[in-house]
Amino acid sequence: MIRTHEAGSLREEHAGQQVTLAGWVARRRDHGGVVFIDLRDASGSSQVVFREEDDAHGLRAEYCVKVVGEVRVRPEGNANPDLPTGSIEVVASQVEVLSESAPLPFPIEGTAGVSEEARLKYRYLDIRRPQVAQAMRIRSKATYLAHQVMDEHGFNYIETPTLTRSTPEGARDFLVPVRLQPGSWYALPQSPQLFKQLLMVAGLERYYQLARCFRDEDLRADRQPEFTQIDVEMSFVDQDDVIALGEALIGRIWKETIGYELPTPLPRMTYWDAMARYGSDKPDLRFGQELVEMTEFFADTTFRVFQAPYVGAVVMPGGASQSRKELDGWQDWAKSRGARGLAYVLVGEDGTLGGPVAKNLSETETAGLAAKVGAGPGDAIFFAAGAASASRDLLGAARLEIGRRCGLIDESAWNFLWIVDAPMFEEDGDGGWTAVHHPFTGPKPEWADTFQDHPGEALAYAYDMVCNGMEIGGGSIRIHRAEMQQRVFDVLGISKEEAENKFGFLLEAFKYGPPPHGGIAYGWDRICMLLVGGDSIRDVIAFPKTASGFDPLTGAPTPITGEQRKEAGVDAKSKEAGDAKLRAGA
Amino acid sequence: MIRTHEAGSLREEHAGQQVTLAGWVARRRDHGGVVFIDLRDASGSSQVVFREEDDAHGLRAEYCVKVVGEVRVRPEGNANPDLPTGSIEVVASQVEVLSESAPLPFPIEGTAGVSEEARLKYRYLDIRRPQVAQAMRIRSKATYLAHQVMDEHGFNYIETPTLTRSTPEGARDFLVPVRLQPGSWYALPQSPQLFKQLLMVAGLERYYQLARCFRDEDLRADRQPEFTQIDVEMSFVDQDDVIALGEALIGRIWKETIGYELPTPLPRMTYWDAMARYGSDKPDLRFGQELVEMTEFFADTTFRVFQAPYVGAVVMPGGASQSRKELDGWQDWAKSRGARGLAYVLVGEDGTLGGPVAKNLSETETAGLAAKVGAGPGDAIFFAAGAASASRDLLGAARLEIGRRCGLIDESAWNFLWIVDAPMFEEDGDGGWTAVHHPFTGPKPEWADTFQDHPGEALAYAYDMVCNGMEIGGGSIRIHRAEMQQRVFDVLGISKEEAENKFGFLLEAFKYGPPPHGGIAYGWDRICMLLVGGDSIRDVIAFPKTASGFDPLTGAPTPITGEQRKEAGVDAKSKEAGDAKLRAGA
Repeated sequence: MIRTHEAGSLREEHAGQQVTLAGWVARRRDHGGVVFIDLRDASGSSQVVFREEDDAHGLRAEYCVKVVGEVRVRPEGNANPDLPTGSIEVVASQVEVLSESAPLPFPIEGTAGVSEEARLKYRYLDIRRPQVAQAMRIRSKATYLAHQVMDEHGFNYIETPTLTRSTPEGARDFLVPVRLQPGSWYALPQSPQLFKQLLMVAGLERYYQLARCFRDEDLRADRQPEFTQIDVEMSFVDQDDVIALGEALIGRIWKETIGYELPTPLPRMTYWDAMARYGSDKPDLRFGQELVEMTEFFADTTFRVFQAPYVGAVVMPGGASQSRKELDGWQDWAKSRGARGLAYVLVGEDGTLGGPVAKNLSETETAGLAAKVGAGPGDAIFFAAGAASASRDLLGAARLEIGRRCGLIDESAWNFLWIVDAPMFEEDGDGGWTAVHHPFTGPKPEWADTFQDHPGEALAYAYDMVCNGMEIGGGSIRIHRAEMQQRVFDVLGISKEEAENKFGFLLEAFKYGPPPHGGIAYGWDRICMLLVGGDSIRDVIAFPKTASGFDPLTGAPTPITGEQRKEAGVDAKSKEAGDAKLRAGA
Repeated sequence: MIRTHEAGSLREEHAGQQVTLAGWVARRRDHGGVVFIDLRDASGSSQVVFREEDDAHGLRAEYCVKVVGEVRVRPEGNANPDLPTGSIEVVASQVEVLSESAPLPFPIEGTAGVSEEARLKYRYLDIRRPQVAQAMRIRSKATYLAHQVMDEHGFNYIETPTLTRSTPEGARDFLVPVRLQPGSWYALPQSPQLFKQLLMVAGLERYYQLARCFRDEDLRADRQPEFTQIDVEMSFVDQDDVIALGEALIGRIWKETIGYELPTPLPRMTYWDAMARYGSDKPDLRFGQELVEMTEFFADTTFRVFQAPYVGAVVMPGGASQSRKELDGWQDWAKSRGARGLAYVLVGEDGTLGGPVAKNLSETETAGLAAKVGAGPGDAIFFAAGAASASRDLLGAARLEIGRRCGLIDESAWNFLWIVDAPMFEEDGDGGWTAVHHPFTGPKPEWADTFQDHPGEALAYAYDMVCNGMEIGGGSIRIHRAEMQQRVFDVLGISKEEAENKFGFLLEAFKYGPPPHGGIAYGWDRICMLLVGGDSIRDVIAFPKTASGFDPLTGAPTPITGEQRKEAGVDAKSKEAGDAKLRAGA
C-alpha cells in the first residue's frame, strides 16, 4: 500500500506517529504562510498542515496526493468536534502529487445548481461526494447482509442465464442477435422466473440470486432498463414460510444498516381491504386519512353524481381554507389522472357545508356527512363516485397528495406490511382476463378447485411486501400441477399452442414430479434507495441511465457500423419457426 | 413447511419420532408384501418402509411425495454404513403423492450412455443427480466465501451496467438494439474493466463484483457466450497487495470447500522463465519434465534442422519403447498444431541413440545428449527448433501430452503459482505491436520511462494466478497518468481519434486526479470447475449452452417475428456517428 494509514482513521492516540496518507485535496485554506488542506480518502478526511507555503504551492482541488507527516493534537481551541479526526492534524514533511486534476466541471462539495445530466456524465466526480459514496457503501453492506441471511437459511446462490429466451412477464424483451446462428436472437430475461421454477423441479429446494433483470419499457421517471432483484424460490413451503424468510431478510438489513428494528411479524392486510381503506395495493400507513365508503350513505341521494355503484370520500384536514385557485388545482390534478374532476365539500368553522356539491345534498345528508367521514370544522371532504376500482384509485391518490401537502407523513418513520389475498385475475377490458401476478401464481387453497368458475373473485396465493407506500417485494406460491396450470391458461385464453411456444419447456418440466414451491423477488434498487433516504433509484446505482436509456458518461447506446451489423447477422432472415409452429397448431 | 424433517438428517436419535418427509422416490425395492423406497430430498435420502404393498402401489420413480411415518432403528444386519441415514428407516403410515412423474428420458442414477444434449435438455432432471446438485452447492458455497473474504478486506460490492457501450477487450461484443433510440445499440460488457477503473477515479478505493461478462467468440469446446468473473480493483496499491488479497481469497475458498490449505505465499515465476522451462505462460507444475534449451549445445551442429535460433528438448520417460505407429502419431499430433513435425531421438536400454535424427548428430553431440537433457535408458527425447516462441509452444504442449500419456500428473494434487513480469507488447505480425494484457496495463516501474523505446522487451506490471496449468485469475497495476497512457497508445498505433472514440470517457476521467490503482479478475466458472473436479465449466453452470450458443432446454436463441423486429427498431439506420467522427479526425 502506498499509504500507512487511512485519513479518516487518525485519532489523538496517533499523536507523535509518522504517517503516510494518500487521497484527494478536498479543501485548502491559506493562513499567512501556513496552508491547511483537508485530505480526503474513502475513510474520511484529515487536516494536513504545510508550514511552508511552498510545499503546498501546486496543490489544487482534487489533486491526488501522497503526504508524509507527523500526527499531532491540534492546538487548544482549534479542534473540530464535528469531525472524527477533528482533534488531530498531520504536519506534512513530504508531499508527492500522484496525479493532477483539471478544473472541475462542478465543485465536489455542495450539489446546488448541478444538473443531473452533468452529475451522470461526470459520475466519477459525483461519487467523490461523501453522501453519494456512502449510498454505494450502504448498498454494498445491504448486499452482504442479504447473502448472510440467505446463507444462514440454507439457500443456494445459483446464477441463471442472461442470454436466454423470451420470458412471459408482460413487458418487452431486449433482443440480442446471434452471430453464430444468423436470424436467431436471444432475449435478456425480465426475471429469472422460469429458471427458478426449473431449479425447484431440479430438487435444489432453496435458490436465491442477486439477479439482473431487463425490461424494455416506455419512459417513466424512475425506471431503468436494467435493474436488480433479490430473487428467491423455495420448495415444500407455504405462504408463511416465504413471509417469515422475508421478514428475517428485510429485518436484518434494516437493523444492521440503519439501526431500525422491524416489528415482526409484520401486519398483513388483504388486497381488498387495502383497496377499500387506502385505495391502493401498496398503502402508505405512515398516516391515517383512510377512505370512507359512502355508497350506503348516498343510497337514496337525489344528487346525480353520487348515484353510482360506488361513492367514497377522503378528508383533507384544514382543507376548507384552501383558495379558489388551490381548489381548482385539485380539479386539474384529478383530470391529469384521467378523472372528470374531484367533487368536494368544505366544512366551515361553524360546521356549515360549503362548495358546489353542498347545495345538492339533502338535509339528512348534510346533517350526517361530517360525522360519517370524520371531518371537523375547517376540513375539506373529497369525493369520488363511479366504478369502485377507478374511484378508489383516485381517492387513494388524493389521500397521498393530502398526506404530502398537509405534512401528515412522518418522513423518519418506517411502515412495513404484507398485502395478501390479491385477486388471481382482472378483466382485460376485452371481455377476457389477465393474470394480476403472472400465470404461474397458484390460487389460495380454498379456490384450488373453483377459481375457473369465478375468475373475478378467486384469490391468488400471493403476497407483496410494502414499505412506506412502495412495493419492495412480491411473490406467490406457484402452481405445480399441470392440470391446474391448464385451467389457469383456459381462463386467460392462452391456447395450448401459445403456452407450448412461450413456456413449453416449463410445462414439460412439470411432468416430472415437480414439488410444491413458491418464492418472492425483492426490488433491490428500491430497497437500497429507501435505506439511503434517496429520491430515485439512480441514487443507489453506480452508473445509471437517464429515463430514455441514455448513459451520459459512456454515451451508450451508440450507432453501429455496417460491418458490425453484417457480422452480427442482424439482417439475416428469421426462419419464423415460432410463427410457423403457431400456425400449424392453430 | 410441508415436512417436519429433511430426509438426509435422520439418525438413530430420531428413533420413535413421528416425522413428515417430502421428496422424490429415488429407488424402490419390493420384498414380498413389504416395499422399500429411498426417499430423496436436497439433504440426502432415507429408507421408507411400507408394510402394506397397497400403500406404495402407485409410487413410481421420481414421483414427488409426502410421507408420514415413525423413525426406527433398522433391524440387526440391515444397516448401511455407507449412508449417513443407513442405521434408520421410516415406517410409513401415510403417503400423499404431491405430483406424479412421466417415464424419465434417462435414469437419475448413473450417467452412462446419456448424451450431453439430453442432459442439458432435461437439465432439471440432470441436477437431481446428487453429484450434479453437489456441484451447484459447492459453487454457491464458494461464492459466499468470496463475499466473506472481500467483506473482511473492506471491499464494496458495486454493480456495473450490462447494457453499455462497446468495451475494448478484443473479442466481439453482443449488441442490443434500443427501441427508444432506433439506430442506436447497447453492447453487453466483455468485462467491467472501464467501469471498475472509473470507480477508482471516483475514490471508492476497493471494488469487487461477481460480474457477468459476454464475449461473442467463435466455437470452442469449453467456452460459453456468457461467463462469470470475480472482478476486483483497488487504489493506492502495489502488485504485492493485489497478490496478497488473491491468496487470501483463493486460500479461503480452497480450504473451506475442499479442505486444501494453500501454501502461501505462493511461488512466483516470471513469464519468460515459465516460457523457457515449461513452454507455457500457465505451466502445470504437478510434474517435472522441464524443457531443456539446446541452442548452445547445437551451436556448431552440422544437422540443418538444428541450425536454428532456438533448439529445445523435452524427455518422455520410457518413450523409446513406443511403436512406430505411436511415434508417427506424434508427428500427426505436431502437424495438427501447425508444426512441421516433432524430431525425436530414442535412448536404447544400452544408451545408444536411435531414431531418424540420431544419425545426423556428431560424435560429441551423441555422447553428451542424454546427460544434457537428463534422459536415461529407454527414454525418448523430443526436439523443436526454429523461432523460440513457436518452438517452446510446441515443446510445452508435448510436455503436457507426455504428462498425460505417461501418467505423470497427480490428479489429486494442487499446484498454484503466480506468473509475473509478462511482456507489455507482442508483435502483431504486421510490423506493429499489440497489448499482451490490455492497453491500460502499466509497465513495471523500471520500464516506466522507456517502454516505448523497447516495446519487445518492456515488462508489464501484470500477474496471473495459475492452478494446475490453468489461468484462474489475471490482472495488473493500471496506468493512471494520461501522459503514460498516450505513450502506450502510440506504441499500439492507436490514434488519438480512435482512443477518443473507444474509451474517451475513461481518458476524460483520468484528467481529474486518478489514483494509482490495480486489480484482478478471477474466472469464476473455471475456479468452481476445479473445486468440483469437473471436466468442463458446464459442470458448474446451472443452465449452460452448447458450444454453438444453443440452449437445448429453452430452445434459445429463437427466430423473432417481423413485428418484434420492427418494434425493436432493428432496421433503423444508424447515423454512423462513430464512423463520421473517425473520418473527420483522420
